[in-house]
Amino acid sequence: MLAVGLMSGTSLDGVDAALVEITGVNETTRLELLKFNSYPFTEDVKARIKTALSVETSNVEMICSLNFELGQLFGEAVVKICQEAGISSEELGFVASHGQTIYHLPRPEKTNLRPSTLQIGESAIISEIAKTSVVSDFRYRDMAVGGQGAPIVPYSEYILYRSTESTRILQNIGGIGNATVIPKNGQLDQLTAFDTGPGNMIIDELCRRFYGQEYDRDGAHGANGQVDQEVLQSLLKHPYFTKAFPKTTGREDFGTEYVTKILDDYQLAPDDWIATATALTAETIAQAVRQFADGQTELIVGGGGSYNPTLVKMIKVALPNIKVMIQEDLGYSSDAKEAIAMTILGNQTIQRQPSNVPSATGASKPVILGKVTYY
Amino acid sequence: MLAVGLMSGTSLDGVDAALVEITGVNETTRLELLKFNSYPFTEDVKARIKTALSVETSNVEMICSLNFELGQLFGEAVVKICQEAGISSEELGFVASHGQTIYHLPRPEKTNLRPSTLQIGESAIISEIAKTSVVSDFRYRDMAVGGQGAPIVPYSEYILYRSTESTRILQNIGGIGNATVIPKNGQLDQLTAFDTGPGNMIIDELCRRFYGQEYDRDGAHGANGQVDQEVLQSLLKHPYFTKAFPKTTGREDFGTEYVTKILDDYQLAPDDWIATATALTAETIAQAVRQFADGQTELIVGGGGSYNPTLVKMIKVALPNIKVMIQEDLGYSSDAKEAIAMTILGNQTIQRQPSNVPSATGASKPVILGKVTYY
Repeated sequence: MLAVGLMSGTSLDGVDAALVEITGVNETTRLELLKFNSYPFTEDVKARIKTALSVETSNVEMICSLNFELGQLFGEAVVKICQEAGISSEELGFVASHGQTIYHLPRPEKTNLRPSTLQIGESAIISEIAKTSVVSDFRYRDMAVGGQGAPIVPYSEYILYRSTESTRILQNIGGIGNATVIPKNGQLDQLTAFDTGPGNMIIDELCRRFYGQEYDRDGAHGANGQVDQEVLQSLLKHPYFTKAFPKTTGREDFGTEYVTKILDDYQLAPDDWIATATALTAETIAQAVRQFADGQTELIVGGGGSYNPTLVKMIKVALPNIKVMIQEDLGYSSDAKEAIAMTILGNQTIQRQPSNVPSATGASKPVILGKVTYY
Repeated sequence: MLAVGLMSGTSLDGVDAALVEITGVNETTRLELLKFNSYPFTEDVKARIKTALSVETSNVEMICSLNFELGQLFGEAVVKICQEAGISSEELGFVASHGQTIYHLPRPEKTNLRPSTLQIGESAIISEIAKTSVVSDFRYRDMAVGGQGAPIVPYSEYILYRSTESTRILQNIGGIGNATVIPKNGQLDQLTAFDTGPGNMIIDELCRRFYGQEYDRDGAHGANGQVDQEVLQSLLKHPYFTKAFPKTTGREDFGTEYVTKILDDYQLAPDDWIATATALTAETIAQAVRQFADGQTELIVGGGGSYNPTLVKMIKVALPNIKVMIQEDLGYSSDAKEAIAMTILGNQTIQRQPSNVPSATGASKPVILGKVTYY
């Protein structure tokens, strides 16, 4: 069956679309990526999303309208990826859309708020534009059974990467680094998933402040600088790194405020800072991996950080006994990984099978994720 | 199959739950009401909904949280109506939930807004509490094909009330009056639906101002007053009443501002005002009905206004050649009508059949409404 997965991440870049051929269900699922592309949001759309996800600037009217507007953009992305592959979207078995997260509140601190999440990008609109059925809203059902609604991709990682020959650790390096550990011959309930700590977040923020650049392209600044071991050892004392599993972190721990603080605390040349921040990401990943590694462990690095050769090299040096690969070494695409994951979740849903991973989200049981809009 | 329909209206009173036995699909649908009850919202919940539906006071965090909170209340309503009927909610084939509308923008005036609607009351939570599948979000798909997402009940009215012997006009009298005309032997695409004008809105507002009462209980004030024919004829000149079909109206035409204006324009005793407002509702309903009536027309009155005997009597007097009944005369319940309607729409959805009425909503075609959350 042909299917399109849509992923629209917290970076607000746009929407990723993966056209796949998918067959089977549960452990028999087989998947082939036929076409992948990203469709950037206009600056206007980005600005409206930013307005809608802020408590200070959002209101019910703009959320109501933006849900429909994003549905149209998502539907158009489905039509485009199909056109680029030379097929009609009507041939699809389904579209699986993650939606744009505008709020995620898994463990609210205010007592008057519920654990909850909110994704928008109306599936009814996607369905009409793509002329096919749509599965959407994957995170809600996991939260209804006490899960955090995140991470959402471990089920697809288990399907695509499980191995009878080695323990495989999927290390995604986005703003935050997160790992999914699939033990050799492991069953779904033996998966462990957690955030390793900062991914590109500190590196990116330093590039912005020192050079007005969005990220360290090709790891050039990191390669040009020297890691300051004293500063690195000091940064590694952050309490997050010794917290017990399962654990998650975010911008509140390693965002702009954190960067302001460390820049006040230590004086380094710009590229030395970037090299040291790169080493911090590499070393915290390595520390986490060492706890789960056995004799036959493979570390598969994905996400934007997998395109930073300085970072990948540091990880390899820190883990001499582990086979470190990037997604592309396995024939996959880092860029397409999450959009592909949506098609695996959507396939489970239309066949009424669960696809959350309670050991990763904290949910009390496996549940069928998502809602189906029938065309 | 057993099913529960949930309706939570714009009055913010609470949630109505109808337990039904439903069989068949499309024209073969048969339905029996087994149990009905209303579960009022607490004042706290009402206050949170009011905050969430206002552009001035709403924000993304409260909407995110309230969606989950209302899902819990809706799920608990399902469990309660089943307990009252002596069954377990696990025996249900499905729950069909309308959701709480917090915004409805079918024809936005601001050019930066999309035609859109927003109902909340998370189906994933309802599903977990009721331990059954849930159909929700009925209005979105109709809007995706150019409809106004309203009225939503005409399909169920067609199924329950169509007749080979007479034209039947379903007149609902809520705040606004709305009519669905089902021609004798008519097909679904021959339905007409429109708002007749004010229902109880003006009467209620006058009762509030004169007596601090929410509505004219048993039509007592209206019965005690005298209709002022001169004022009535003047009120009947409001441009809405001569507007072409299809047409909709609301609080913006006949709400508090309108009442303030007419109270300034004319001087009448309180009960004469209420009698005259009651006559306005009756006469505008009668005028609309006369346009569609043939020799064998039945007018079936429902909604809160059907419990105002003064109003029903005035309608009967204004339509001497038409058989005027209330829902209860047919063995139905005015209170339960919309919750029952949801089960008919939900049944269509799970059998992948359409249930919007394009001639009523303005949609370009029939579509399958709603989203299915599988338990």
